[in-house]
Amino acid sequence: MRKAIGIDLGGTTVKGVVMSEDGICEHITRVPTEAQKGGQQVLANILSLIAELIQKSSLQASDFVGAGLGTPGFVDNDGTVSGAENLPGWKGTNIYTPIKERFGLKVTAANDVTAVAMAEQRYGAGRGVNNIVCFALGTGIGGGIVIDGKLYKGTHGMAGEIGHIVVETDGIQCNCGLKGCVERYASATGIVNLALEYTKSASGNNLTPFVEIVRGSPSKVTSKMVYEYVAAGDAVALKVHHKACDMLARAVGIILNTLSPDRVVLGGGVMMAGNVILDTVKECIPRYCWPNIYEHCEIVLAQMGEDAGVMGAAAMAFE
Amino acid sequence: MRKAIGIDLGGTTVKGVVMSEDGICEHITRVPTEAQKGGQQVLANILSLIAELIQKSSLQASDFVGAGLGTPGFVDNDGTVSGAENLPGWKGTNIYTPIKERFGLKVTAANDVTAVAMAEQRYGAGRGVNNIVCFALGTGIGGGIVIDGKLYKGTHGMAGEIGHIVVETDGIQCNCGLKGCVERYASATGIVNLALEYTKSASGNNLTPFVEIVRGSPSKVTSKMVYEYVAAGDAVALKVHHKACDMLARAVGIILNTLSPDRVVLGGGVMMAGNVILDTVKECIPRYCWPNIYEHCEIVLAQMGEDAGVMGAAAMAFE
Repeated sequence: MRKAIGIDLGGTTVKGVVMSEDGICEHITRVPTEAQKGGQQVLANILSLIAELIQKSSLQASDFVGAGLGTPGFVDNDGTVSGAENLPGWKGTNIYTPIKERFGLKVTAANDVTAVAMAEQRYGAGRGVNNIVCFALGTGIGGGIVIDGKLYKGTHGMAGEIGHIVVETDGIQCNCGLKGCVERYASATGIVNLALEYTKSASGNNLTPFVEIVRGSPSKVTSKMVYEYVAAGDAVALKVHHKACDMLARAVGIILNTLSPDRVVLGGGVMMAGNVILDTVKECIPRYCWPNIYEHCEIVLAQMGEDAGVMGAAAMAFE
Repeated sequence: MRKAIGIDLGGTTVKGVVMSEDGICEHITRVPTEAQKGGQQVLANILSLIAELIQKSSLQASDFVGAGLGTPGFVDNDGTVSGAENLPGWKGTNIYTPIKERFGLKVTAANDVTAVAMAEQRYGAGRGVNNIVCFALGTGIGGGIVIDGKLYKGTHGMAGEIGHIVVETDGIQCNCGLKGCVERYASATGIVNLALEYTKSASGNNLTPFVEIVRGSPSKVTSKMVYEYVAAGDAVALKVHHKACDMLARAVGIILNTLSPDRVVLGGGVMMAGNVILDTVKECIPRYCWPNIYEHCEIVLAQMGEDAGVMGAAAMAFE
C-alpha cells in the first residue's frame, strides 16, 4: 500500500508520521519547533524530522508517494509561506524546494486547519462524500473546504477563512481587523466574551449560579465551564449558548447556499460539548439557508482526534 | 476543432447554438418554450431544437463532444430537474436520458445562471484564471462558481445561490422565505425597493429631483432610472446606490474569505451602470474580508453579452 509522510507544524512542536493510504499511522514522532530561533531553524527541524521518519520506516525516500505539511498561515502554489505571525521568520520561507532537493520528495502544503478537513473527508466524518466544509472551533475558528474529494486551497492557499465570515455588520471587533466575524461569537474566546457580557448585564431573576461564578472569577471562565452550566440548565448560560449557536448557524447557512456541500463538519475543542451545540445550530440554520439545500446536507460532529492535523497533511500527499 | 451543442432554456424561448471550443457560435436558433403545455412539451421542443442544430451543422450527432443545457432551477447528478417553479411540469423531468437515447449525446446540465459563469471563465472576464465567482444582478441575483476551471455545481446541482447569502439578519423579507438576502438590496428589484423606501422618508434638504420623480410615479421606477440620477449626483439616489453596493460588498467579502477566488465577476442587467457600482463595491469590500485575500482577487465587470447563457451551456460539454 502507498505510504506518505505527514508533518503538522505547531507553535511549539512539529509532529510527523508515516501513514499508509488507508490511514494507518506509524512512527509518530515529535520534535521542538524552536520558532524563536527563526524560520531557517524551523525548516531544519522539519528536514531532520523527515529524515528520522524515513529511517524509522526502513524505506527509501523514493518509496513514498510524497510528503504533506500543515502549517500555520498560508502556503502559495510554489510552497512559500505567508501569514503565520506566531512563528518568527517562518513567513516567506519556501518549503517545497529544500524538501524536494534533499529527499526528492514531492511536497504538498496547506494551512494546518485546512489539512484537518482533508483528514475528516478521507478518514472521519466526511467519508463517502465528495464535498465537505469543516469548521474547527478552538481559540479561533479555522476552516477547510474539500471539493470533489480534493482540498480546495484557492490559487494562493488562502481559501477557507470561514471563521472570518462577517455575520454581524459592525459587530464585535475581531483581532483580524474586521468587525462581526463569526469567530468573535462561536469560538472558545467568543463564547467566553459572550459569557462576560451577558453576566455583566444580568439582574433580577437572571442572577443565576452561572452569573455568580463568572462575576466571581471572570478570568477563569472557559467555554467548557459555560457548557457545564448549559448542561445544568442555567438560564444565562443557555442565552450565551443560543447566541453562539445562532451566530455559527449564520455562517453555516451562508456556506450551504454558496457551496451546497454534502456535509458540514463541526470540530475543535469547543465541540467537546457535542450534541447540545450541534442540535441548536441545526435548529437555527433554516433562518439562513434554503430548505432544499439544507435537506441535502448533513451537519455532523468531527470524528478525528488529536492526529487529525498530521493525518490530513499526509492525506494531501495522496492527492 | 471540437464542437458542442449549447441549449439555454428560458421561460418563453429555448435558444440553441453550435459552438466550437474556441467560442465561435454558429446556427443560433430559437424555438418557443411552451411552458404552459407542461414539461414533456418543453422536453420535446428541446429535442427538436437539437435535431435542427445537428441538421444545420451538416454534422452527425457523433461528431459533437456533447450537449450542454442551462435551465431554471437545479439539475441533479442524474439529470433530473428540481425547483424551476416558473416552468409548469418541468420539475422532475429527466433531461439526460431522452437526449442520450435519441442522439447518443453526452449531456451536462446546470442552472442557467451558473452556466453563465462557465462562459465568463472560458471566453469572458474570467479568462486566464482558474477560480472565479460570478454574480448575475438582474431581477434577482444568481450566481456561479468555477473552481479549477470547472463549474462547481455541488452534488445536487444547487451550489451558487449567492444571491441568497443573508447579509442582514432579520432584514427585508425575500421571496425565497429567508430574510435579509443580498438579492433584496442589490438586484434590480432590491434597488427599486430601496429607492421607494428612501424617497418615502425623505424630507427637507433631501427633497431632490429623484424623490419627486419616484413619488410621482412609484410604479415606473427602475434600477436604470436610479442610476441616471446617481450619474447626475442626486443625493438620495446616491444613498440608494451606496446601500445597494454595501450590501453587495458584504456578500462579495464573504465569498472572498471563504473561497479566495482569483476574480469575482459582476454582471447582469444592473451592471449596465458599470464602473459606478464596481468602484463603490470595491470601496466597501475591505470591511468584510481580509486585505491579503482581497489583494489577490480582482473584482471585474462581466464581458459576455446576451449569448452568455447558451455559450456557457455549450462550454459545459467540453469539460
